[in-house]
Amino acid sequence: MKLSSGSLARLISELAGLPGIGPKSAQRLAFYLLNAPSETAENLANAILEARKNIRYCSLCANLTDAEICPICADPRRNREVLCVVEEPKDVLAMEKVRAYRGLYHVLHGAISVRDNPGPDQLTIQQLMNRLQEGQIKEVILATNPTMEGDATALYLAEQIRPLGVKVTRLAHGLPVGASIEYADEITLTRALEGRQELNK
Amino acid sequence: MKLSSGSLARLISELAGLPGIGPKSAQRLAFYLLNAPSETAENLANAILEARKNIRYCSLCANLTDAEICPICADPRRNREVLCVVEEPKDVLAMEKVRAYRGLYHVLHGAISVRDNPGPDQLTIQQLMNRLQEGQIKEVILATNPTMEGDATALYLAEQIRPLGVKVTRLAHGLPVGASIEYADEITLTRALEGRQELNK
Repeated sequence: MKLSSGSLARLISELAGLPGIGPKSAQRLAFYLLNAPSETAENLANAILEARKNIRYCSLCANLTDAEICPICADPRRNREVLCVVEEPKDVLAMEKVRAYRGLYHVLHGAISVRDNPGPDQLTIQQLMNRLQEGQIKEVILATNPTMEGDATALYLAEQIRPLGVKVTRLAHGLPVGASIEYADEITLTRALEGRQELNK
Repeated sequence: MKLSSGSLARLISELAGLPGIGPKSAQRLAFYLLNAPSETAENLANAILEARKNIRYCSLCANLTDAEICPICADPRRNREVLCVVEEPKDVLAMEKVRAYRGLYHVLHGAISVRDNPGPDQLTIQQLMNRLQEGQIKEVILATNPTMEGDATALYLAEQIRPLGVKVTRLAHGLPVGASIEYADEITLTRALEGRQELNK
């Protein structure tokens, strides 16, 4: 298909390169951006450019932030004795949404791959060990994903951290709320059974 | 939820303002744009800005283009005696995809609303009549949408064009290919019945 405008063709092609955006959606988004008030299009373009320019890693927890220290690390109301270790910045977002956690975070930026890269060196593990050696942190909650890589990372970290005398815990595995046992996979059911808890009267 | 980066929050919020992009998709797209090579993010931002800057309406057919005259109007191989009238530039894209049409286009930029704006004055109808008065065009195909507004627009245009002695046709209505009669709505079935064609042996 030959487009009547090279700029339009380029915009559609750039949009279609985004994950989860097919050719039809890219076309619809392109026409939306052309027909919307010019601020809408400019604000989006500038937000992309500024995010790339401003966002860096917090020098303490390696989460995404605009400043040297992220607002979570800088917040005096957070519990500085508990540290939640996650794979990616989006996992911090997910944890913060539940509001049940008031401690600090550490972002690994990946997980140890069972077969190849990234190995432990490419993650922020050394930075994590340095934080733990300062002695303020009493408990590390390993919140890596319940995948092969996440499990390997959690096992590796637990081995490294235990000698420091810090309590190491892991998020519970089991049936997701609202799920049906009928459709649960075997591994999840096995984990749910292993982690079963006594009901208090 | 408090985000650790204002730039990230702004990017997610701008992305979530796009049609068909929910909060979850906006978050995923934002992290994609942060982790992708910086050219990916810059190319997208620049494509948006340049599209807004460069794209204008073709002075003949009112389709979107980067130049004074769009490539379709400028193409000497197109049949200059047939003109297809559509509501929006995206309808030109759809028609061009089928490759069955080799004539020219005219983009109305809307349809006549049955109740309120836009009235005929806000569309490019005067521009269309001027083109037809030049006398080169022998047939006008009305390819407005099969909606109340599209039908009203087609009726209005047919009345205006007929006195010029130009043949006026309309895209056929009927069952979409692959559809099931069982689930077709009554109006579509009525149109399909009205437009029934004799089968040649």
